[in-house]
Amino acid sequence: MSAATTLSDRVRELLPAIAERAPETERLRRVPEETIAELRSVGYLRAFVPAKYGGLEVSPYELAQATRILAGACTSTAWAAQLLAVHAHPIANFSPRLQEEVWGADPDTLLCSSVAPMGKATQVDGGIRLSGRYSWSSGCEHASWAIVGFKMPGTSGEPEPHFAVVPRDDYRIEDTWHVMGLKGTGSQDLVMEDVFVPDHRVESVIGMNLGMSQGYGTHPAPLFGLPFLPVFSLGFSVVGLGAAEALRDLYQQRLSTRVRAYTGTKVSQSTPALVRLAEATHELRCAARLLEHDWEAMQARAESTEPATWDDLVEWRGNQAYATRLCVRAADRLFEASGGGAVRDESTMQRLWRDIHAGAAHAYSDYDVAAQTVGAHLAGIAPPEGSF
Amino acid sequence: MSAATTLSDRVRELLPAIAERAPETERLRRVPEETIAELRSVGYLRAFVPAKYGGLEVSPYELAQATRILAGACTSTAWAAQLLAVHAHPIANFSPRLQEEVWGADPDTLLCSSVAPMGKATQVDGGIRLSGRYSWSSGCEHASWAIVGFKMPGTSGEPEPHFAVVPRDDYRIEDTWHVMGLKGTGSQDLVMEDVFVPDHRVESVIGMNLGMSQGYGTHPAPLFGLPFLPVFSLGFSVVGLGAAEALRDLYQQRLSTRVRAYTGTKVSQSTPALVRLAEATHELRCAARLLEHDWEAMQARAESTEPATWDDLVEWRGNQAYATRLCVRAADRLFEASGGGAVRDESTMQRLWRDIHAGAAHAYSDYDVAAQTVGAHLAGIAPPEGSF
Amino acid sequence: MSAATTLSDRVRELLPAIAERAPETERLRRVPEETIAELRSVGYLRAFVPAKYGGLEVSPYELAQATRILAGACTSTAWAAQLLAVHAHPIANFSPRLQEEVWGADPDTLLCSSVAPMGKATQVDGGIRLSGRYSWSSGCEHASWAIVGFKMPGTSGEPEPHFAVVPRDDYRIEDTWHVMGLKGTGSQDLVMEDVFVPDHRVESVIGMNLGMSQGYGTHPAPLFGLPFLPVFSLGFSVVGLGAAEALRDLYQQRLSTRVRAYTGTKVSQSTPALVRLAEATHELRCAARLLEHDWEAMQARAESTEPATWDDLVEWRGNQAYATRLCVRAADRLFEASGGGAVRDESTMQRLWRDIHAGAAHAYSDYDVAAQTVGAHLAGIAPPEGSF
Amino acid sequence: MSAATTLSDRVRELLPAIAERAPETERLRRVPEETIAELRSVGYLRAFVPAKYGGLEVSPYELAQATRILAGACTSTAWAAQLLAVHAHPIANFSPRLQEEVWGADPDTLLCSSVAPMGKATQVDGGIRLSGRYSWSSGCEHASWAIVGFKMPGTSGEPEPHFAVVPRDDYRIEDTWHVMGLKGTGSQDLVMEDVFVPDHRVESVIGMNLGMSQGYGTHPAPLFGLPFLPVFSLGFSVVGLGAAEALRDLYQQRLSTRVRAYTGTKVSQSTPALVRLAEATHELRCAARLLEHDWEAMQARAESTEPATWDDLVEWRGNQAYATRLCVRAADRLFEASGGGAVRDESTMQRLWRDIHAGAAHAYSDYDVAAQTVGAHLAGIAPPEGSF
Repeated sequence: MSAATTLSDRVRELLPAIAERAPETERLRRVPEETIAELRSVGYLRAFVPAKYGGLEVSPYELAQATRILAGACTSTAWAAQLLAVHAHPIANFSPRLQEEVWGADPDTLLCSSVAPMGKATQVDGGIRLSGRYSWSSGCEHASWAIVGFKMPGTSGEPEPHFAVVPRDDYRIEDTWHVMGLKGTGSQDLVMEDVFVPDHRVESVIGMNLGMSQGYGTHPAPLFGLPFLPVFSLGFSVVGLGAAEALRDLYQQRLSTRVRAYTGTKVSQSTPALVRLAEATHELRCAARLLEHDWEAMQARAESTEPATWDDLVEWRGNQAYATRLCVRAADRLFEASGGGAVRDESTMQRLWRDIHAGAAHAYSDYDVAAQTVGAHLAGIAPPEGSF
Repeated sequence: MSAATTLSDRVRELLPAIAERAPETERLRRVPEETIAELRSVGYLRAFVPAKYGGLEVSPYELAQATRILAGACTSTAWAAQLLAVHAHPIANFSPRLQEEVWGADPDTLLCSSVAPMGKATQVDGGIRLSGRYSWSSGCEHASWAIVGFKMPGTSGEPEPHFAVVPRDDYRIEDTWHVMGLKGTGSQDLVMEDVFVPDHRVESVIGMNLGMSQGYGTHPAPLFGLPFLPVFSLGFSVVGLGAAEALRDLYQQRLSTRVRAYTGTKVSQSTPALVRLAEATHELRCAARLLEHDWEAMQARAESTEPATWDDLVEWRGNQAYATRLCVRAADRLFEASGGGAVRDESTMQRLWRDIHAGAAHAYSDYDVAAQTVGAHLAGIAPPEGSF
Repeated sequence: MSAATTLSDRVRELLPAIAERAPETERLRRVPEETIAELRSVGYLRAFVPAKYGGLEVSPYELAQATRILAGACTSTAWAAQLLAVHAHPIANFSPRLQEEVWGADPDTLLCSSVAPMGKATQVDGGIRLSGRYSWSSGCEHASWAIVGFKMPGTSGEPEPHFAVVPRDDYRIEDTWHVMGLKGTGSQDLVMEDVFVPDHRVESVIGMNLGMSQGYGTHPAPLFGLPFLPVFSLGFSVVGLGAAEALRDLYQQRLSTRVRAYTGTKVSQSTPALVRLAEATHELRCAARLLEHDWEAMQARAESTEPATWDDLVEWRGNQAYATRLCVRAADRLFEASGGGAVRDESTMQRLWRDIHAGAAHAYSDYDVAAQTVGAHLAGIAPPEGSF
Repeated sequence: MSAATTLSDRVRELLPAIAERAPETERLRRVPEETIAELRSVGYLRAFVPAKYGGLEVSPYELAQATRILAGACTSTAWAAQLLAVHAHPIANFSPRLQEEVWGADPDTLLCSSVAPMGKATQVDGGIRLSGRYSWSSGCEHASWAIVGFKMPGTSGEPEPHFAVVPRDDYRIEDTWHVMGLKGTGSQDLVMEDVFVPDHRVESVIGMNLGMSQGYGTHPAPLFGLPFLPVFSLGFSVVGLGAAEALRDLYQQRLSTRVRAYTGTKVSQSTPALVRLAEATHELRCAARLLEHDWEAMQARAESTEPATWDDLVEWRGNQAYATRLCVRAADRLFEASGGGAVRDESTMQRLWRDIHAGAAHAYSDYDVAAQTVGAHLAGIAPPEGSF
């Protein structure tokens, strides 16, 4: 691949094949191997892998833009693949020993995750013993390691969220992914039973956000100085944006051809249909402007000597959740005016619409929580427990 | 069955079994025979059949209330079954000869429909020859006759919408019902190829709305004096209402038990969750008050010597479409705050939510069209073409 | 006045004069004496006075309907006058001695109120001593007594809200009513300085809601068995409804004549203008259906031996606040599309719109509070403190 | 004034005095002379005057930012003043002879406008004779010339909108500005009776948008190469944004101190109040991102050799109208939850809220029209007549 092309340019060439494979992806309930191979071939899955291991170290902006167009072709693929790609960012902040274990032999090694602190951990000599059922692990069938969450006492002595990185042999995958949207992400359950995880594979989430992890500073690229959370969550909003933009484009194309069943009138002569197109376009433009601005701000933070502040984290998180809400609103506005034909399985509109809703159901995109966090922060009072 | 019980009372006893069969109904993509047999046994399917043929002649109010609770148990079943039941109303206004053909031998005979004027008709001696592909014919696999739409010159000389009633032998059913919601309605395509339909099986839609059809006045019950349209469309809004009320009840139940995955906080202590419950409840209460009022008004019209006016038709139609919109808003408000668990196939919430959206996609519930019709009527100008 | 006419019939005849006086009412910042005299002459101000004192004892439904049309003519007048009328309801549940003091000499005596517990009371022998500044006392310039709120230990020993009834000589009115809407209500401040209020003029609010006040059962009319709160709050929502319906009617009338300044196109040919009219009409119809239903339910409760339940109070209160919100939404929807001409002082639209917003700012109509109360009640958990 | 300071820096120093004068500005119903003198002193009113006449030729971005903060201090002042400032842009594209008449003797000369084509013009030798009543001429009492609209046959032979520039002696001002918001803008009527306007003071609006006016190219600054419309309309949206941001700041400040009258609970502990603050902040952030992006795009167009396209004009216009709608939504969201105190005249919140609504009532900000234009443009069909 040429250095002159952007990641988006290279991903764009894959889109026709990936779009054609979208129904099969839903049927398989996971991303097809073929698609993984293609995304690997253009470097998408190594976007955030350190250069030391042959990665691209692109900016959050560049990965986001590539993910945006990928989501329009197959939202499930984009959801799972961006997580597989993004997970390189936290790993580059784990201990050098773990990094070597993961990438030393094969820089194409992929990791899945399930980061809510659902596991039970016991501290033992040299590490922890961990048990738990970890749901929603998108793309896990392509991964050799899993990043999973649990709580144990941190520097404060209080239970704090931590991550453990666990090799594929130490957990089993249970096939539970039967859902109404994002069917192709293969977001299965990972089951761990009393697994030993040595200390060099464990980090505190707070440490990952504050630059205090074992591997912090391992790599010179500015990317790796960014806190865990905004990078990890980068994809949730942009996948929704890309899918909603694709839905909008389909609506726009149909407008010139669709005829109402009962009346025979052309929908393009229907003022409400035009108003919906405009309003959805404005909503998506707002979402895009919010996100693009923040991707640039992240990069500026990465390149500056001033680390991201708490203000930044609250603002970015709130904007991501609000952008997702705007995408849902736009998608509903268009889909509900697309007529009975749009509910048929062969309609790409209904697939995109289901996927947008399933993605927005992710806890991170819950605007009820994000709005309380943002509002409390602005009002100068403590946010509700567990906002981050 | 006891005369003292209402239709709703008798339907209520069927609900546990029908609710349990809901997943199977989706899988079959049609209402199971067993369910049809049960609904027949309590008289639901004969609700609008004339007493002369052993029917119940219940009020629109009573059928609507029974349909409302049925929709909460299995929305697909309610959608298809209410149409099978409601079709008796127009048939009772067709020629006595047709009525005898339909019900003479078996008062339990069911009819499906596809009323958009999609067919091509040629007038021939003693009737018409009709060809066409008729989509969205809910419940057709249980029906022995079909009511289908087409246009031919009416009394004005201009092409006007008409209905033809066609026996099962004269059309074939094509299995095309692969959709994202209301999967169990079996709303297949009916294909007719140059079918002869004699005059006594043909009526003008305008005549059906103005009391000018061949069979008008055949039966003394006030029900049959009501115009075609508001009775035919009775179910679309009430199915949505019943489904949304069931979704609200599930949300309410979950509120006391659900815990957020990342934070461990109880959702019942979440103010936004309570506000959503209240707001959805108010939206559904508005929908219920609008519809209940109109069902009473229809009955009052049926029992009076003053026929329903154009004002009535516009108001009822607009209210039905607006009530459907309120149900969609309420369903979205609750579903989008129900977390990731609600997207799983085993969650009844996602099924209800998909069904509500699929039902609202019906052309009759298109609020963009209804609002233009209502607005134009109020402003004293001609409504957009094809509003009714 | 004829017994055969309803209160609404008689009020309707006053409307042209009251509407013409609306600008003067704003300028005066109080309801003109002339209007008070007219409303007295048709019995409006005695609607809830006990028959024993020459009152009409009409139903909440009848007073609400009369208030609804009054609000369309002059919203300020309706707001103040309905409160002056409604205050007879709590007074009829105070001690017979107070009732005699108020109405014995003159059944046309009016009372104003300011019921938030803003005063400071000290219990003394035979009563209390009360000081405080009471704001928002609509219509106070026409009243001879004031009902005001304060807290003192109740039967539970905890501070509970109470009401004191204070004669005009014991407080002064301060002219503070300079506002952006409902300018003509004269909702001035009442200032009390160490006023003695004897026990027979004091009641607990809880007692007034539970039928445990000194005068409970004094009068046989069912009306007086209703709890304080839903009757007292009756007018806040219906004034908003009547004003919003009047705004809608003006919008509808303008639709046929208004021409856009820049384009010269007729607004009636503008689809969005028609859609706005329809949507506002549906919102107001929902508000009306909710309120009318509850007025009937109140009357049914009054006439039954079953007192209103906590469920009733929560539902009625929530519906009133939601109806007010619907009226605000409808008013905004129409006003924001009424063009620059509607912002001019001579436009009745802007006056109605300001009045609707000012009315909705009343604490009782705060949907944020009402929704939490309703949601918590439905979820079976304690409502937020101070919901009632 | 120092070259190193921005216009915003210099305007910021004036804000305390201008904010204090806001009530007086409402009372006077025009911007006080003192304020005009201050704005002149910092160069605000010469922001778009050509350098040849001593003007600053700042970018649209810089004028917009200065206007944004000015609107927060006194919205009426910002509305009128930005128009007085912006009018220099079209004048710099009129004939050099007119420019010399306007600025030759005094570069501080101000112009007002009323651009809807309301006048009647007759073509006569060397010019036109013009009569008409021109409403909404903000700031006219400070202006020596007026730019007014009328229609006459253009190059196509069809009636097209044109502008005439008329000196103060040729029209009279009628005091008609009695309104519910933006009271201090002095947007009076200009009355012209058979005024002769020579050709060098007349331009076609289409020519002003396409770089075909008599004075196009007179000045080297890129600013003057921008089409008329997006520059002229620059202020309508940014005034609303600045006012809404000020309202949001007031709401945020009150949150920590406000206590509910009936319940005594602190509003800052009210989750809905925090959610409203967050949601309004997100709405305003979207509006800001949309507008800032377009101000930069305008500047980029000005500095490039590619003129603005039709796509640009549609997008900018649509974004401005949508941003205004977002500001109205945010203002309503906050104001309706600000309690009864916010309706009092002494509350800055109610003034800002009235001003935001009055500003949004300007024809240019009518989203119903803008959305149809944008929707039609996206769908590839002709926009409704008179969209621009």
